[in-house]
This record gives sequence, C-alpha cells and structure tokens, in this order.
Amino acid sequence: MLRDRIRYKPLLDRVVSADQAASLIKDGMTVGMSGFTRAGEAKAVPLALAERARKDPLKITLMTGASLGNDLDKTLAEAHVLARRIPFQSDPGLRKAINAGEVMFIDQHLSETVEQLRTNQIKPVDIAVIEAVAITEHGGIVPTTSVGNSASFAILADKVIVEINLSQPVTLEGLHDIYIPTRRPARMPIPVVTPEARVGLPFIPIPPEKIVAIVVSEKHDSSATIQPPDSETKAIAGHLTDFLLNEVKQGRMGYELQPLQAGIGTIANAVLHGFIDTPFHDLKMYSEVLQDSTFELFDAGKMTFASGSSITLSAEMYQKVLPRLAEYKHRLILRPQEISNHPEVIRRLGLICINTALEFDIYGNVNSTHVGGTHMMNGIGGSGDFARNGFMSIFVTKSIAKNGAISSVVPMVSHVDHTEHDVDVLVTEVGLADLRGLAPRERAAIIIANCVEPGYRDALQDYFDRAVKRGGHTPHLIEEALSWHVNLREKGTMRPA
Amino acid sequence: MLRDRIRYKPLLDRVVSADQAASLIKDGMTVGMSGFTRAGEAKAVPLALAERARKDPLKITLMTGASLGNDLDKTLAEAHVLARRIPFQSDPGLRKAINAGEVMFIDQHLSETVEQLRTNQIKPVDIAVIEAVAITEHGGIVPTTSVGNSASFAILADKVIVEINLSQPVTLEGLHDIYIPTRRPARMPIPVVTPEARVGLPFIPIPPEKIVAIVVSEKHDSSATIQPPDSETKAIAGHLTDFLLNEVKQGRMGYELQPLQAGIGTIANAVLHGFIDTPFHDLKMYSEVLQDSTFELFDAGKMTFASGSSITLSAEMYQKVLPRLAEYKHRLILRPQEISNHPEVIRRLGLICINTALEFDIYGNVNSTHVGGTHMMNGIGGSGDFARNGFMSIFVTKSIAKNGAISSVVPMVSHVDHTEHDVDVLVTEVGLADLRGLAPRERAAIIIANCVEPGYRDALQDYFDRAVKRGGHTPHLIEEALSWHVNLREKGTMRPA
Repeated sequence: MLRDRIRYKPLLDRVVSADQAASLIKDGMTVGMSGFTRAGEAKAVPLALAERARKDPLKITLMTGASLGNDLDKTLAEAHVLARRIPFQSDPGLRKAINAGEVMFIDQHLSETVEQLRTNQIKPVDIAVIEAVAITEHGGIVPTTSVGNSASFAILADKVIVEINLSQPVTLEGLHDIYIPTRRPARMPIPVVTPEARVGLPFIPIPPEKIVAIVVSEKHDSSATIQPPDSETKAIAGHLTDFLLNEVKQGRMGYELQPLQAGIGTIANAVLHGFIDTPFHDLKMYSEVLQDSTFELFDAGKMTFASGSSITLSAEMYQKVLPRLAEYKHRLILRPQEISNHPEVIRRLGLICINTALEFDIYGNVNSTHVGGTHMMNGIGGSGDFARNGFMSIFVTKSIAKNGAISSVVPMVSHVDHTEHDVDVLVTEVGLADLRGLAPRERAAIIIANCVEPGYRDALQDYFDRAVKRGGHTPHLIEEALSWHVNLREKGTMRPA
Repeated sequence: MLRDRIRYKPLLDRVVSADQAASLIKDGMTVGMSGFTRAGEAKAVPLALAERARKDPLKITLMTGASLGNDLDKTLAEAHVLARRIPFQSDPGLRKAINAGEVMFIDQHLSETVEQLRTNQIKPVDIAVIEAVAITEHGGIVPTTSVGNSASFAILADKVIVEINLSQPVTLEGLHDIYIPTRRPARMPIPVVTPEARVGLPFIPIPPEKIVAIVVSEKHDSSATIQPPDSETKAIAGHLTDFLLNEVKQGRMGYELQPLQAGIGTIANAVLHGFIDTPFHDLKMYSEVLQDSTFELFDAGKMTFASGSSITLSAEMYQKVLPRLAEYKHRLILRPQEISNHPEVIRRLGLICINTALEFDIYGNVNSTHVGGTHMMNGIGGSGDFARNGFMSIFVTKSIAKNGAISSVVPMVSHVDHTEHDVDVLVTEVGLADLRGLAPRERAAIIIANCVEPGYRDALQDYFDRAVKRGGHTPHLIEEALSWHVNLREKGTMRPA
C-alpha cells in the first residue's frame, strides 16, 4: 500500500515517526508548511512539534500558503511555538495571540510571499513540510487538496519533510499544475491564457535526496465552516445577479460572464450558489479557493471549469465530491497560489472578483481585516491581488453586524485594505452601488442611498452633507470621521444616541 | 514643410484652424486628449475650446494620459468646460475646482483607464485630440513627447483631431512603441520581457479617414518645475543609495540593480540624480515619466536604457536634449501608459519603484494624494500600479512640511493610497526604514526610530506606547488617531502644545 504512495523506492527507508520528523525542526528555524484555506496542510508533524514544545520550548517562523485546518494554528500558538506567522491565518486562538502582540503576523498579498523568498528579501525557509498524496517514480511530490506555496517551499528549502496522507484519495494525482516563474529580471510571460491552461507538471519537481523524512498520516482535512445562505446573503446574491444580468443586457459581456474569482467565506459562497438560478451558463472560475458553490455550479450544469489553489468543502460536500473526484477532475486545476493569484494572469483573463468586506466607507474604501481598526481578524489574503488587477472588483457584506450595533457602512473606515480605486461595486442586502466612473462625492451619494441599513442612513447622509460644506475632493469632518468606531468602543454601539 | 509632416496626402485638405477643429467638440462629449506629465498634450484645440466656451458655454468629460502642460487644465477649468476629468491632473487651478466640487475628478491607476474604456465600463470617447510629430504615408499618427492614452483614444474614438506640432523635432519619430493588448478574455501575454523590448509599431495605427481635422501648432511643451536637489533630498538620496549598496553587498542584486521606476517630482528626480556618484552601473529604467535625471544618468554613463510613457524635462535640459535626440534615441522607448504601467510587465521585470508620499503613518500606510485627508493634490497616478506589483516599493518624502507645522509621519494617515502591504521601504532625510518581513508593531518601532523629525519623535513614540497597551495587531487609540490632523486644521500645527 505505502509502496503505491512512495513510488521512488530509495525513499522508503526515510519513513519515520512524526516525532522523529519534528525533531528536525530546530529553535529559530523558518518552516514552510503546506496548507491553504484549511486544505492540504501537513497534519502530523506540526502536532508533534507542538507536543515537543510543551516540554522543550522552541520558537519558529511559520510560513504557509494560507490558513491551516485541524486547529493547528491554535495548537501551535498555545504551545508558544510561533514567533512569526506568514502570510495568512484564520484561527481564533492564533488571532488572540497576534492581537496580544505575542506572535508577529506578517499579513501579505498571497501572490507575493514566494517572490520575497526567492529574492531573499525575507529570511529563507530552512525546512519544508508538505502533505502529499504520493511521491512519484522520480521523487516528485504530488500535493493533496491544496498547492498554496508548497512547491516553492520545497524547491527553495534545503530539507523537505513529506507527510503522505493515506486518507487523501489517489485520484487527486493529476489535478495539480505546478509552474514556477523564473527568477527576475530574466522572466518569460506566464503562459496561462485561459483558466483551463495546463502549463506545468502534475507534481513538485525536487531532487529526491532533499526529502529527509517521510511521515504517514491519515487525518482528514477540516471541513469548511460555511453557513448556509440566509435571507441577507440571498438578497446580496440577488442584487449582484441583477447587476450582472444588466451588464449582459448592456452588451458588456455574454451570459458566460468573465472568469470568476470569489473569496473564501459564507457570503461569497452564497453569491456563487445564487448563480444556479440564473440564465448565466458556461461559467469558469479562476480563483484561489474552490468551495461548495463550485461543485454545486458544476452539478447544476452552470460551470464548465474551475482553477484554484485549494479545495475547501463542507463535510457534506466532501463526502459527495471526494469519492467522485474522477468525474470532476477534467474540469479542475490546482495551481501554486503565486499563479492562481498572479497579477499578470488576473489582469489578462479579466476576472470578475467577489470579495468580502468587514466594513466600507461612504467613498468606497474597504476594510477587510481589522476589527475596530486595530484587531486582526484573518488577513488580507488574496483579495488585494484580485481587487487591484481584475476586470471588475466587487465587495460584499451585510449592512449591519452585532444585531445592528455595528453599521458596515461608516463615514471613514478604521483601516484601509482596498482603496476606492480598487472598488467598482459594493453590495449589501440593502442594495448595490455601481461606482464605476464616479468621483468620490458621487460615490458617497449612491453608497448612502443604496447600501446602508435604513437606521443608519440619515446619520451618514448628515455626516456627508456637513462634510461637503467644508469642501474637498473627498469631504470629511476629520475630527468626527472615526467617531462611529469610538462610539462602538466606548458605548458598545455605532447607533446615534 | 507641412507635406513632410502630413505624408498621407489625402489628409492635407483636412488642415483647419484650431477654432474650426474645436467646433467639432460638442456639449456633453467625452474627449480623449494626448498629454502625460505635461508632455505632448494637444495645445491649440483645447485653448480654442476654452475661448469658445467663454462665449458659448459647454461641458465635457476630459480624459488624458495624465497631467497637461501649458496651463491647459487651469484654462479649461476657469472657462468651466470641465464637467469631469479623468484620470490625473496636477494643476493648482483645476485642483481648486475639484476641491470645490465643481469638477468631478476620477482619480485612477494610470494603467486602468483604457481597460475600462475598452470594456465600456465608463462612457466612450467621442473624439480624440492627439498631438503628433507627423502622419505617416499610410495615415499612422506619430506622437510627440508622450504616448499616454493617445493610442487607445485614437483607436476607440470615431473621430480624431490631430495637432501637428512643428516645434516638436522630427527625430521623435521612431521613438514610440505602440502595442495595444487585445480584448479579454482572449488576450495573449504582453511580450515585453526586457525594458528594451520593442513589440509594437512606431505610430498609432488607425484608418486615416477617422482623422476629421488637422491643426498645425508650434507651441512648446511646458518645462518641468523640478527643483534642484537640496540638503534634504540629497540626504534622502544618500540613505537610499546606502541601502541599495547593502542590497548588492548582501547578494540580493548586482550593481545594475533591478530596472528602476521613479515617480514624477523633485524628490524622486533627486534620488535618481544621486545615483551618478555611486558604483551602480548599467542601470535601466522602466518607468512612466523620464525626467532630467534619466538623461543625466545617460550622460554620466550610468544608465544604458530607459523606457517610459513621456519625456518631461527642465527648460535647460530640453535645450540640451532635444537637439541631440538622435544620439539618445537608441536608448529610449516611449510606450502607451497601459504598457509602461502594466501590472504584468512591472511584476515580470521586477522593478525597484520609487514614489513620493505626502505623509505616511507609523505602520507604513501612505497618503500620496489628499491634504488633510480631504483636499486633492494631484492624484494617485501610476504609483499604485508600481507599488503593488514591483520587486520593491520605496516611498520618499521630507519628514516635515510648512516649516515644521506638519510632520509627514503621523499616527494614522488621513487618507490611504498605499496600504502597508505595498510599502517595503520608507525614506526621509532623517533616515530609512526597511520594513520587509516585519509585522506592524515592528514596523512602527523602526519608522519612529529612523524616519521622524526629532521634534515629533517623542509624541509618536508616546502614541504608539499607549496604543500598544490597548492591544491589537495594529494598535491605535482610535479616538486620537487623527488628532494630529485635527490640530493642524484647528491650530495650524501638528506640534504638541
């Protein structure tokens, strides 16, 4: 059985326990691990490392593709293993440590991490830990449910630990397309000219002697914590569908739209799910994470192809998709996140990009990361790669949070992740604001009219009216601009008294 | 003489007066004019249009490459011709009208305007007005000192007015490289793989019958208002040079560095000028505007090639360069701004990007456009194209302004153009902060230590210390975050009492 998974025979004697493999990770090292949106992370070695650290403290810099599943970030944070964490996370336990200043979190555009590594602008990866379905006859590593930064970590590190996960189906082999850009300035164009383009190898090519240890595991990926669509997310999906139908009617695109990107999470997933009941057809995705909605759109005959860097599904969808993966495989590619999120490809393909905001302001600046302007939620992820370079950048959110104590539309966002230049369309359950070609004052009028929960509308209009009297391209009452956030902090609500 | 400039003979009878040409521009039209960083703008027709509007009011949407010279934006604004202005300006008179809300200014990343036009996401260009050196034998338009958006305006508009400028030397012909990406989703890679790559035509190819009028002019480009290096800009250049020398020493690049981009203006120009007295050699530029420093580096034997979208020089440098243009020509290319600023090419070539900040905050977020958070200065220009996608993003500014009443380093910027993710290095005359691989709290420590004018340092450190006590990934005292700007507005200074 294991011989089918480790097909390069000289490596069979590198199989060790997770503890033994973890012992190769030393205090102060930078470790590059597989894992992207809670899919395909190495599972056994980080747990063994956390276990060891409880007796024998050590600190590492942990780099991944994106977020890890199986509570690994929590476990590592609680064991105080993480000195630094790059470039994304979504774990409540780690988040706490980050906001307490215990873990230095470097929140990066997901396409950029390996560029910085490759050019030695950040500290090199000492050791890579990569989950794999198999090692090929020639020693190539076949990733599992995500590619993330695994290929570059394995290529750049001196030592590689492979976790062969027997619970990941062998049918994953052939799904991946590993293409790594050359070093600059001598770099050729990335040859991806359609979402379907296969331009690389189905495995990570490294000299097999770099594989210093192999660990066998059987732990499943965590399932996604996606909430089912509710009335608000359905309303958001409805507004966006109407808007895109009008784009088709205006002749700006056909019913196949442009290739779609959607950020991780409940709202973006619900929006795509909503496309099932539309006249759109022959849709394609060029995204970072493929969620339940991708497979629902396949099953509904609405989508013909999806390219991503990971597959992250609900428990129910995992049970449905994994056994039938062979049937979906010809419509799927998993790429390194550098390619799934590459500005070159995003701009070339002309993506419609749908990402989630925490809050946005009356001019359309978006905060997608910082609660109250100070506390990190997850990270910017790939949203900046897509919003800056796409054909059309759409941000979605519910108009209120915390039972209305928070308005997602504010006079000025408390933290900016996406500037108004990168925000074409805003959608809440209240309505949609098409901001293309508008100046800030025009943007404010339409955002306030279309997107704001009615109980907050008058207060925002009043703020804007008074700011306009003071003048400026982007009018603000600078002493009052963040007062809604101050109210929330001091009084527990943004609502005017 | 004119027959050498209008070589497609059927067009000779289209020569009309500027007034006659301007009469083709009707109320409500969108007009696409040549001009980028005060170079190569159409000069006669917009003046005639302003003149006419004083008697017979009309409003247009004016799109250009970037800023216009010869006080055209001022003149047009004062004649109340401009309803809307896209995508950049730098004129004090127009700025006033924008901040008063009289002109709707749509401030865009300079690479994006024609993508939005091409996909009908903004209103189409009704008529293009393009300054040219000549019209070729087959009716192609040879631009003058800038390309900007001229090629796409001429290609997309139904009607084109050409201004043949006899004062622009015929040696400009052959300098331009006009390559226009195809419509998406069917787009091939842009074949620019080196700054020197010629991939297009030396003229704008349009059916000559679209040229409805030709105007002859002789007005010169405005000269740049670049200030000579002073002690602060010299100090900034010195810090940056030392930093880059260390990058070479660390083996991250050679003495030829990576291709350079530098924003328009005195500080960026002074920084490049400073490279004359360094061991760097065989430098190349891939930038939007080529300023005095480009030619100084050519003359000093430090630079081998420069690609841009325009040439904007001081009066002295114009007199030196224009007569000798033939000698420089083999080392120069002027491209459409969509290509000079294209994310695909910027990322591929791996540019070192040097742009100017108005202010930045202790976490490295940059405001490059809004004075006091409300009043537009010029516009974001190409800085976002470069800072997001380059190899290394550097922002420079003097540490104080208005005799010290303003600190350029503040607790929180009053407007965000570039988020901390896009800011690798900050430089003031006080010092340099290398922010690569650092978390926000680490960034704050080094920015406060290295970049702040000493009279403001204690106050910033105090703010940061108190914010850290409150916690968060990006600690802030949200009720106090913009208080320095409030102080400036109310008391005329940011200085603590």
